[in-house]
Amino acid sequence: MGYLIGWVFVAKKQYQAHDETVESSVLTKVRGVARLNTTDFKLWGPEDYVYPKQSEDSVFIATNFIETPNQKLRNCSEKSSLPDAQCTKDEDCIEGESVRAGNGIMTGICLKTAGNSTGICEIYGWCPTEIYQKPDKATVVREAENFTLYIRNFIRFSQYNFSKSNVILNKSKNTYLKTCLYDEIDHPYCPMFRLGDIVNKTGRSFQESAVKGASFGIMIDWTCDLDKEDSHCNPHYSFLSLSSNETGYNFRFAEYSNDAEGNKQRTLYNVFGIHLHVLVFGTARKFCIINTIINIASVLTLMTAGSFLCDIILLCIVKKSAFYRNSKFEKITKYVTEACLLEIPVLCTLI
Amino acid sequence: MGYLIGWVFVAKKQYQAHDETVESSVLTKVRGVARLNTTDFKLWGPEDYVYPKQSEDSVFIATNFIETPNQKLRNCSEKSSLPDAQCTKDEDCIEGESVRAGNGIMTGICLKTAGNSTGICEIYGWCPTEIYQKPDKATVVREAENFTLYIRNFIRFSQYNFSKSNVILNKSKNTYLKTCLYDEIDHPYCPMFRLGDIVNKTGRSFQESAVKGASFGIMIDWTCDLDKEDSHCNPHYSFLSLSSNETGYNFRFAEYSNDAEGNKQRTLYNVFGIHLHVLVFGTARKFCIINTIINIASVLTLMTAGSFLCDIILLCIVKKSAFYRNSKFEKITKYVTEACLLEIPVLCTLI
Amino acid sequence: MGYLIGWVFVAKKQYQAHDETVESSVLTKVRGVARLNTTDFKLWGPEDYVYPKQSEDSVFIATNFIETPNQKLRNCSEKSSLPDAQCTKDEDCIEGESVRAGNGIMTGICLKTAGNSTGICEIYGWCPTEIYQKPDKATVVREAENFTLYIRNFIRFSQYNFSKSNVILNKSKNTYLKTCLYDEIDHPYCPMFRLGDIVNKTGRSFQESAVKGASFGIMIDWTCDLDKEDSHCNPHYSFLSLSSNETGYNFRFAEYSNDAEGNKQRTLYNVFGIHLHVLVFGTARKFCIINTIINIASVLTLMTAGSFLCDIILLCIVKKSAFYRNSKFEKITKYVTEACLLEIPVLCTLI
Repeated sequence: MGYLIGWVFVAKKQYQAHDETVESSVLTKVRGVARLNTTDFKLWGPEDYVYPKQSEDSVFIATNFIETPNQKLRNCSEKSSLPDAQCTKDEDCIEGESVRAGNGIMTGICLKTAGNSTGICEIYGWCPTEIYQKPDKATVVREAENFTLYIRNFIRFSQYNFSKSNVILNKSKNTYLKTCLYDEIDHPYCPMFRLGDIVNKTGRSFQESAVKGASFGIMIDWTCDLDKEDSHCNPHYSFLSLSSNETGYNFRFAEYSNDAEGNKQRTLYNVFGIHLHVLVFGTARKFCIINTIINIASVLTLMTAGSFLCDIILLCIVKKSAFYRNSKFEKITKYVTEACLLEIPVLCTLI
Repeated sequence: MGYLIGWVFVAKKQYQAHDETVESSVLTKVRGVARLNTTDFKLWGPEDYVYPKQSEDSVFIATNFIETPNQKLRNCSEKSSLPDAQCTKDEDCIEGESVRAGNGIMTGICLKTAGNSTGICEIYGWCPTEIYQKPDKATVVREAENFTLYIRNFIRFSQYNFSKSNVILNKSKNTYLKTCLYDEIDHPYCPMFRLGDIVNKTGRSFQESAVKGASFGIMIDWTCDLDKEDSHCNPHYSFLSLSSNETGYNFRFAEYSNDAEGNKQRTLYNVFGIHLHVLVFGTARKFCIINTIINIASVLTLMTAGSFLCDIILLCIVKKSAFYRNSKFEKITKYVTEACLLEIPVLCTLI
Repeated sequence: MGYLIGWVFVAKKQYQAHDETVESSVLTKVRGVARLNTTDFKLWGPEDYVYPKQSEDSVFIATNFIETPNQKLRNCSEKSSLPDAQCTKDEDCIEGESVRAGNGIMTGICLKTAGNSTGICEIYGWCPTEIYQKPDKATVVREAENFTLYIRNFIRFSQYNFSKSNVILNKSKNTYLKTCLYDEIDHPYCPMFRLGDIVNKTGRSFQESAVKGASFGIMIDWTCDLDKEDSHCNPHYSFLSLSSNETGYNFRFAEYSNDAEGNKQRTLYNVFGIHLHVLVFGTARKFCIINTIINIASVLTLMTAGSFLCDIILLCIVKKSAFYRNSKFEKITKYVTEACLLEIPVLCTLI
């Protein structure tokens, strides 16, 4: 029994109450510049590649894109990869409607190239439609691997009126924060992460992820024993891949302008990139007299159950032994029970 | 007791440990085009009606809007619907301040139309102020009902190092994904949803929701028995209305430009639409020796409690029976207890 | 025992099942105008100072900013505060690379002012780089203290098919909603909050927070007894500071334009402000026969454990008393147990 109580109270700290409700505020900032080969942008800074600009716990860093320039509102053929856009006669293309996932409204004409029996419906929309192509390795922003992510996470355990930040500012720390880089062993509390490191720690390749996009999770785990000093309550970072190898991570947006004749035109961007999601978990523990009592009661309950189990085992399995059935229960059972007690509850408290 | 254990272990699968912490990444894409009657836009694609452009688990699809064009910075009367903007004399309009929810800074003049004793304060701001009107059924984008929403959801149960996506890409599936549409019975795992279907499944009318805006929840529930094959772990979709009939869902934004004389002007948009929020829940179960032992112990504890209850019932209720009190407890109680045991714990494990 | 059951069932309402899974939808709107002293904007409305435009449970209200106007793509010296940008010779500035958190790509030249042995690397980027300065009290938007935040929160307890909104619209209420302002005592259910009040309730100073930015949490707690009428289920608001005094809350964005010669230029904004995060918690309780039975069983189990504990205490501590050991256990223990019973389980159910 001493052993059991030792286990529950020393190893599992069951004399403490715990609170898993953590209120958290996350602010992320990405830093780094890249040289681009496009005509529009020659240099990309965080103001250009980070979405959304005001990034909290979720941030997207564009690393690749496919541009469809100079789209204008006129007639053209629908995207050929859409199954519903295939046609054999004009009646297949219902005027005024649009096919599923289509880019415009059908004009009622089935466009066929000479000699083919099947064609593609004509649409009125932003033409030409988006070029259907896989993201290209040649256009990827290779510098993104060295971009840094700064995470500021403030947590609060309201129940215990305890709050802490993963970034502690003071004169000696300021220089450290400007030069440190997160590393599990050497700098486990540095809030600055290299993008390439985050991706690699999940077992994925950065360059592959950058080409077609990928999603990653950064888990911050705060396990705090509030009976100890504040300085023992520290974040623990871990990294997860949150997308499969097959799929990427992308989104599209358009930029509108006017051409020389004053007609509206747009450039459509299909942007691929690294999506990061900061997930904060927390558990605070503090001594609590009620928990202590409940756990003593639980241990005893388990012992009662254990002795009951032993009773049954003795009764059922050893029932052949006539001697046992006839003898007085209590004394013999007591010894067996004590042996039983040492095993069952210990297993039970292992959870 | 056999019955009890059967219940707990076969029906409730209490021999398994379960993990309800699911790390999840959601990517949503809306597709479809609509023809508009405004001068500025003749055609609306996802690049125009989806907010924000980089939509994760929360997406807003604009379906209606009220435009207040050509606002300029000058003096005009405050919105008449504001209670604080009402005035009877100039002193009611404190110069340099603004009324609550006001659109500009008061100039200190109370504007009255001839013959009225009350008027509206004059402000300096973007004038004229927004036209106060209910969203109009005439301007709603009717095509939005047929827009499709594609949801990609990747989940991970870190404790079991298990991850899965609701979209499985392979040659045979690719065509399926391009043509399927979610349906509870025929296509329960198709990740493509028609907006009209989502709204209708919650019991709301799409056209009404589209006029003044509404919020909906799409719940993805992953209940996975990891002792079985991966293919048994599948998402289950359900739909919720997350706004009341009375209120709508809208937001405002402004687009700035310069007029012919180079003065700044803006167009204010009050946009109504369908807001969708993807909520992911998950439970993973796996065999666990410790849980098995604990549950056996629990069942036995409940039995002990049951027998104790029976003792008390027998003692208290049947106390009139002198025979009972005088006889030896243990043997009689044993039989009664066994009968009791069959009912109480079974009820208790029903949770 | 009557006392115990009274405690568990009347005070703690353990006869009810409870559901802590609340599906929630939050819509926030900020209102108010401010006069600015910048050349570009003379007046700031919600369309200008709220990020993102479509704000759900998280909203940022800009209250201060530092402008770096007319940046152009050319060569200049790197930000002097970056440790890695310090150099003593040209070889320290590797051509084509960029220093950590840098603003451009190094040209391979170390710029030194006459007489100094150390200098700063030259970069190609948006020049001049951002002015390094602390946010200024002079530029803060003082009117922001009086801005109002409107929160609409719709909740649903799916398990009980119960939903409610914090905003109830009807003729008599509409005027109330336009004029009320949240106050713990007088208007505890008014969904309109003054920014200054939110900040002050957390013990922070508004003007200080507005200067360098800060993050706050607005917790909405729904504790609903569904056995009672709907009108008893009301939100309870509380306020939290989610950032430390030392750190601020800011983000950067750039606005691109063309200068007179048609060259691209940009204005970089470093925006400071009040970040608000609405956190919704909920617990629904409803009568449940199974819970009632389980709690009776639990109370009894605790009693069993209590009696077992008393047994042990009596056995171990009072073992000197030979009288006790020799006498018949059951009857004496019974009385002691009953005394014990009144204390242990009551303490246990206090949780």
